[in-house]
Amino acid sequence: MTMAKRDTYTPDSLLAVAVEVFIERGYDGTSMEHLSQAAGISKSSIYHHVRSKEELLRRAISRALDGLFGVLAEPGALQGRAIERLEHVTRRVAEVLMDELPYVTLLLRVRGNTDTERWAMERRREFDHKVSDLLKQAAAEGDLRDDVDIRLATRLLFGMINSIVEWYRPGRGGAVSRDEVAEAVVRTAFSGLRRP
Amino acid sequence: MTMAKRDTYTPDSLLAVAVEVFIERGYDGTSMEHLSQAAGISKSSIYHHVRSKEELLRRAISRALDGLFGVLAEPGALQGRAIERLEHVTRRVAEVLMDELPYVTLLLRVRGNTDTERWAMERRREFDHKVSDLLKQAAAEGDLRDDVDIRLATRLLFGMINSIVEWYRPGRGGAVSRDEVAEAVVRTAFSGLRRP
Repeated sequence: MTMAKRDTYTPDSLLAVAVEVFIERGYDGTSMEHLSQAAGISKSSIYHHVRSKEELLRRAISRALDGLFGVLAEPGALQGRAIERLEHVTRRVAEVLMDELPYVTLLLRVRGNTDTERWAMERRREFDHKVSDLLKQAAAEGDLRDDVDIRLATRLLFGMINSIVEWYRPGRGGAVSRDEVAEAVVRTAFSGLRRP
Repeated sequence: MTMAKRDTYTPDSLLAVAVEVFIERGYDGTSMEHLSQAAGISKSSIYHHVRSKEELLRRAISRALDGLFGVLAEPGALQGRAIERLEHVTRRVAEVLMDELPYVTLLLRVRGNTDTERWAMERRREFDHKVSDLLKQAAAEGDLRDDVDIRLATRLLFGMINSIVEWYRPGRGGAVSRDEVAEAVVRTAFSGLRRP
């Protein structure tokens, strides 16, 4: 039995607590009871904010997806040669991932047992396809190496970007900064680690 | 109640079944009962092969680690300029990951609640450090770009390699081959996706 505290949560602050619990226990392994304990408020207080656990998941995933799809609407993603747009998107996706770390982490871990999870996976695939299309355009414009398959290149690029969630923790003393990480991803992915 | 079949398992074939269950349910979420059901033999038959669930984990992790550390002992990892050794190690680690896919997947997912898991994480860190040392040597020999931090480069390199477990499935029709994947990883990581 947890001492219930006064419910001073906003939709955003309650979501932040829920996302931490989803990441720690897995979405399937999380009950409303777990959320109530983590938030320190009663289940009925939580139901005052949201109708269900799945609504919390949908909101969290939406936040991640809005950030990611937002990148594709930026001027840097729309103007110029495809390779420049691709580098812009890569840098910005890495930044969004770090800025919205728990939300993107959750998006990447979703596996698809509920409607919301299947929708999340579908939207994620859609995003990957848009980036893959950019790679295709860059290849068509002659700016991409032609000895790496486009689908494979897309996967390796996202593999590198997405792996940031495994170790990046904002504000950790002595660690590399967000901008340094984003810059390193762009340099490594497009120009490689070997000195030219 | 599962119909028990005759126990014709070898240590390796029983391990293969256990690893699939560990990956699917998580190591913590797997009981001897789950293993018994998946293998189709009784729990006492399993205890005839191994003393505990943890012994199965240790064997599986050892198999992954033996493969990975084995790469560091290959001539290609020991002779020549550091950048060449690094490229050899990168290619071979990607290959070992694909050849020993379930075992390496399990190694990468281990989080550290038991002695075996902590040992696995320690050995993995040790491996990462050895690769990081190779990067340092390559930098000292002037073959690595100097505008990406070595620790960050190590993380991005492993991020790219390890992400292969998320989508690579051997023998899947129409998919890229193991050799193509390993080659693409080396090209992307060291020379980048941009046409030189």
